[in-house]
Amino acid sequence: MNLHQKYINECLKISKKARGNTLPNPMVGCVIVKDDVVIARGIHKAVGEIHAEREALLKAGKDAKGADLYVNLQPCSHHGKTPPCTDIIISSGIKRVFYGIKDTNPVSCKESDKILKKAGIEVFSDILAKECLIHNREFFTNHIKKRTFVFGKWAQTIDGKIADFRSRSSYISSDKTKKLVHRMRYRADAILVGIETVLNSDPMLNIRYIKKDKSLIRIVLDSHGRIPVDARLVETAKEYPFILVSSTLLEEKRKVLVDKGVVIIEHDPHDLKGLLERLYEEYSICCLMVEGGGLITGSFHRHKLMDEYNVILAPKIAGDNNDFSCVRVGNPVKIENFSELVLQKLKRYGDEVHLRYFSEDIVCLPD
Amino acid sequence: MNLHQKYINECLKISKKARGNTLPNPMVGCVIVKDDVVIARGIHKAVGEIHAEREALLKAGKDAKGADLYVNLQPCSHHGKTPPCTDIIISSGIKRVFYGIKDTNPVSCKESDKILKKAGIEVFSDILAKECLIHNREFFTNHIKKRTFVFGKWAQTIDGKIADFRSRSSYISSDKTKKLVHRMRYRADAILVGIETVLNSDPMLNIRYIKKDKSLIRIVLDSHGRIPVDARLVETAKEYPFILVSSTLLEEKRKVLVDKGVVIIEHDPHDLKGLLERLYEEYSICCLMVEGGGLITGSFHRHKLMDEYNVILAPKIAGDNNDFSCVRVGNPVKIENFSELVLQKLKRYGDEVHLRYFSEDIVCLPD
Repeated sequence: MNLHQKYINECLKISKKARGNTLPNPMVGCVIVKDDVVIARGIHKAVGEIHAEREALLKAGKDAKGADLYVNLQPCSHHGKTPPCTDIIISSGIKRVFYGIKDTNPVSCKESDKILKKAGIEVFSDILAKECLIHNREFFTNHIKKRTFVFGKWAQTIDGKIADFRSRSSYISSDKTKKLVHRMRYRADAILVGIETVLNSDPMLNIRYIKKDKSLIRIVLDSHGRIPVDARLVETAKEYPFILVSSTLLEEKRKVLVDKGVVIIEHDPHDLKGLLERLYEEYSICCLMVEGGGLITGSFHRHKLMDEYNVILAPKIAGDNNDFSCVRVGNPVKIENFSELVLQKLKRYGDEVHLRYFSEDIVCLPD
Repeated sequence: MNLHQKYINECLKISKKARGNTLPNPMVGCVIVKDDVVIARGIHKAVGEIHAEREALLKAGKDAKGADLYVNLQPCSHHGKTPPCTDIIISSGIKRVFYGIKDTNPVSCKESDKILKKAGIEVFSDILAKECLIHNREFFTNHIKKRTFVFGKWAQTIDGKIADFRSRSSYISSDKTKKLVHRMRYRADAILVGIETVLNSDPMLNIRYIKKDKSLIRIVLDSHGRIPVDARLVETAKEYPFILVSSTLLEEKRKVLVDKGVVIIEHDPHDLKGLLERLYEEYSICCLMVEGGGLITGSFHRHKLMDEYNVILAPKIAGDNNDFSCVRVGNPVKIENFSELVLQKLKRYGDEVHLRYFSEDIVCLPD
């Protein structure tokens, strides 16, 4: 890793702290470097707050004159909720700008390279570009695919089961990985399960076990309108947003649910692509966590709409090949057609392992 | 890790090179330390060759006088294929002996602590004892349980499948992990599969893709005597040992097989414990590798005879819950009774992962 990559990497590292707080904005970190010393750092802390470049430059003050600026994403040049970063970069007297990856938003950054160069600043791009792309995979997926980014999570036995033959799943993962799962929930704007999960375990789908909290939108796919009107998700819908996706609700039941605060999206739950486009456009959901079960995970997987897979691998063997497989696509598949994923992360938690996979095309940007 | 642990750890590290060559003997490494400097190292290279202590002391020569000796297993005090290590330790003028774990063989080491102490040598034991136990798990299992040590290996998809619905498995793992699998084979004395695997893929069960070679004993469990007389295992039985375990072979077929060089063990393949005792006592098989399929792995697992599990996790999803699960025990199991394993090793090979688990009681020594 050369020096420029090292500083861009630091931008990635410091901006990670804001994960879960920035969407629809990206996570951005910025470091100001003078004579091989970092003199100021800044991150974009949350949507609506100042950009990383501005924070770093305000901290650096007059020392920024003649310094280099590193940032993982191309600086913006438009007036949004905050003024353009190019203005303050120029007025601070920055000599060179190094950024990781071009922004794909045609509005915010189209002119920024030109503006900086016109002001006499040298501009260098594509430094750890792939890492920068992955870092903001939710943001780029939103902009490129015009839909919600989707990541799945499940806890399974070595032999791929998420429950026993009675559909019980309470003891598969341990307390050690509970926090991890709730940190994952924090990353998302919304969390989705299938109706079977609701009928089986009447979940709350909220954030527990970690200090941070946020109000997740809870979503249930319910093809046949089977949700019990006294499910905990329904009963708490006035406090915490709850969306039910169904196209076959009886009018009477719909009324009861709406009265209890449930938002109902009339959409065929099998048209997942259309649903993700609506969740992004109409409900501003940038990042969706899918927590199964196997048929729901299998649906997203089959339609190539699962961008990221998080597997908690428990050190257990079910042994009976029951129906509760982690990913159920339905049709027999020939081995040469088994879906291939890309392993991104591997981390041990005691005897458990967290494996993070990407779908094959998550890291591909259009030309 | 303190200094003593550091040197015992070095003994473990250097002796690993001999893995696959020492059984029925343990893997042993020895370092001679004087004034905080390692002045000589030795390992037990292969069965029949000199012990690690002797090799190290011969290398150290006169410098051994007054030095400390570190060895991962208690030194022997009996005349076996080689003279007792206690003799040369005493005659070399070693001042202190540090060893990792007591030998469980009552013949070879019973008196060694006493003999060394009588000669004025200080003796310290139980240094990284658990690590030393695990290091020689085959050896200790042989002595304590009076049976062959068993480790399983399979390559699976994330959802626990070792083949597609047609029983094809050729592409689950990649070239990257092929070498790993053949290094595992080298570790064993014998390799075992079920008859289904023979009927499906007519394997040779030999060692390829690595530089080292050895003549593995190939074993097939064949309850109903279904092995084809022209299977490759049968056709090559005169060159490479092949044992068929069956209790129901027709006399005529038995004759053909014996003529072709097959060794036939009349044993009920369902009595795995008895079989492992016979393989150890009658055939001197100290370490057996079980390569499936799911029913065979499941049998060893159900009878608590699988000491170690090696999973190659391919970054693939089968998606259809077919019959070819990695471990098939048969009966439905409640989640609270799912077998729990201990994760020992986790290593990434590209997008694949090698996970090594131990059975819960592998690391327990009797008092």
